[in-house]
Amino acid sequence: MTPAIPTNAAIDTASVIALLERGRTLATPMLRAAVARLAPPMDTVAAYHFGWIDAEGNPAHGDGGKAVRPALALLSAEAVGAEPEIGVPGAVAVELVHNFSLLHDDLMDGDEQRRHRDTVWKVHGPAQAILVGDALFALASEVLLELGTAEAARATRRLTLATRRLIDGQAQDISYEHRERVTVEECLEMEGNKTGALLACSASIGAVLGGADEATADALEAYGHHLGLAFQAVDDLLGIWGDPEATGKKTWSDLRQRKKSLPVVAALAEDGPAARRLGRLLAEDATKSQREFEDFSEEEFAVRAALIEEAGGREWTSREARRRHATALQALEGVDMPGSVRERFAALADFVVVREG
Amino acid sequence: MTPAIPTNAAIDTASVIALLERGRTLATPMLRAAVARLAPPMDTVAAYHFGWIDAEGNPAHGDGGKAVRPALALLSAEAVGAEPEIGVPGAVAVELVHNFSLLHDDLMDGDEQRRHRDTVWKVHGPAQAILVGDALFALASEVLLELGTAEAARATRRLTLATRRLIDGQAQDISYEHRERVTVEECLEMEGNKTGALLACSASIGAVLGGADEATADALEAYGHHLGLAFQAVDDLLGIWGDPEATGKKTWSDLRQRKKSLPVVAALAEDGPAARRLGRLLAEDATKSQREFEDFSEEEFAVRAALIEEAGGREWTSREARRRHATALQALEGVDMPGSVRERFAALADFVVVREG
Repeated sequence: MTPAIPTNAAIDTASVIALLERGRTLATPMLRAAVARLAPPMDTVAAYHFGWIDAEGNPAHGDGGKAVRPALALLSAEAVGAEPEIGVPGAVAVELVHNFSLLHDDLMDGDEQRRHRDTVWKVHGPAQAILVGDALFALASEVLLELGTAEAARATRRLTLATRRLIDGQAQDISYEHRERVTVEECLEMEGNKTGALLACSASIGAVLGGADEATADALEAYGHHLGLAFQAVDDLLGIWGDPEATGKKTWSDLRQRKKSLPVVAALAEDGPAARRLGRLLAEDATKSQREFEDFSEEEFAVRAALIEEAGGREWTSREARRRHATALQALEGVDMPGSVRERFAALADFVVVREG
Repeated sequence: MTPAIPTNAAIDTASVIALLERGRTLATPMLRAAVARLAPPMDTVAAYHFGWIDAEGNPAHGDGGKAVRPALALLSAEAVGAEPEIGVPGAVAVELVHNFSLLHDDLMDGDEQRRHRDTVWKVHGPAQAILVGDALFALASEVLLELGTAEAARATRRLTLATRRLIDGQAQDISYEHRERVTVEECLEMEGNKTGALLACSASIGAVLGGADEATADALEAYGHHLGLAFQAVDDLLGIWGDPEATGKKTWSDLRQRKKSLPVVAALAEDGPAARRLGRLLAEDATKSQREFEDFSEEEFAVRAALIEEAGGREWTSREARRRHATALQALEGVDMPGSVRERFAALADFVVVREG
């Protein structure tokens, strides 16, 4: 599709790619060393999850994700005048927590594919998905606290609070599945917990390790929180109207899963013929089995997508992404930081809202 | 059965009961307050797990376990001259980690009963068992790190390392199930991880919060580690020869589950006719389905138990419990602490090895 959020500014893509690449390059050795501490077979299972080996144990160069979180952690160290390297244990810790949550969520949600590969519970069984998730969560605190500094303890506390919100978000996501209606506010709260909290922590953890005061850390967290909500709004748009080639997912992916994502709940909140027709259709859909539902024709999903758009759900979500993008940048205004760091925070925010996959 | 480990000393049972009761009384309010922070429905699921409410949500006074860990945490604060109250956040944190591991282990092991009640995954489903376990683990760090002290950060680091060993132990336990033979050393390593590590942390965490130096904390950990192994050896004896009335488990409980516990692996390590006959029987048993196996007559289990005893597995495990009991007390010798505290550490160790349930 055309970018969800066209902006007037030319995006500094090269700067974003360099930032993401630096995050991966600096964080990966310490991440691999942390994972290597796990007792067998958990080390192997974790290496498979991270895409370092395939299901047979052969070296692989799998897709480890965009790695926005480590990039943010390093940049946030620079925001307080520290070397990016100061943020590395923070980058590793947020990646560990992020992957702990993926391992457990994929099992709870019964998702069989992640990053174009079979999920861990599918390949190695549910017990390994639970165990390795637990171990990665523990490792996250371990890599921070072994620094032995007051800053590391503060960083761990913030990470722990973010993790609890991550868990809250997953609990809400699960409970919403069984409900007929979810409000826009509930959806935003869930996404703020599930996506916003850990991005908020990523955007501040390097600064905390670099000795940031609480106000600076809070402002950076606010940037990350709104960035997370912008990211999720775009994700929700891509989940319906994304190009399968770019997203790596099926067409109408979120509709196939009957996800109560932002465009859907925003459309249902409207009061017009399209919203009402959509409401009736989705209520009927809810009575069908998942298999029956997945076998719908492309046409049938296209009808639902058109109704969501007609009711205003697509436009509302686009505007929401722009609002969050703007609020994220505003949060940085009160923080005194080098201009080059501020520019990269802005470029990353632009990238998040214009991405197509 | 008669006590697994008859000792010459009269056990100061009253002192142990008072110690356990104090642990529960001081730690429970903070534990309940921590659990109350969880978002619904996780707060309810956790309250069910702790036995505070029943499956319908009505108040209950369930069996919350012996609460050896909180008792140890408080006593360890006193070991360095601090008030027992200093140990309370540590007591709460170890209880949270202990219960996190119970929630996840019961799910992984498919155990349907815990403390005479249906397990959480059985009542509330696997997703809640995973989520609430994760949340309790996060809460453990949270209650410690919000103290904001260097001591709390040290305590959290030690707790995190203990948790990783706990996870290692569960991974070993699972992998041993699929193996025909397990050595005594492997069994001891697994039990040291699964039971020893968190008792070691419990026995030192109050002292760490009270400002203990590393040598003192390490000595208290050594006491807890060996106490844990003594505890587990007795547990393994009770798992075969325990009185169902006292243990709350079926007769021959561990044999029914084909557990490769200490008496079994110690018996198989011997070289005599009983050990060989036992080896052949257990190899045959391994080819049977779990259902087929559970339907064995009392007589058939009694034959296996008698062979374990004849081969020396019962006596070896009894001696192991006594050895660990002695080593635990020796570990305390180098620590300068009030006599009354040392006496209670000793009474608790005595209690652990003479208990019948």
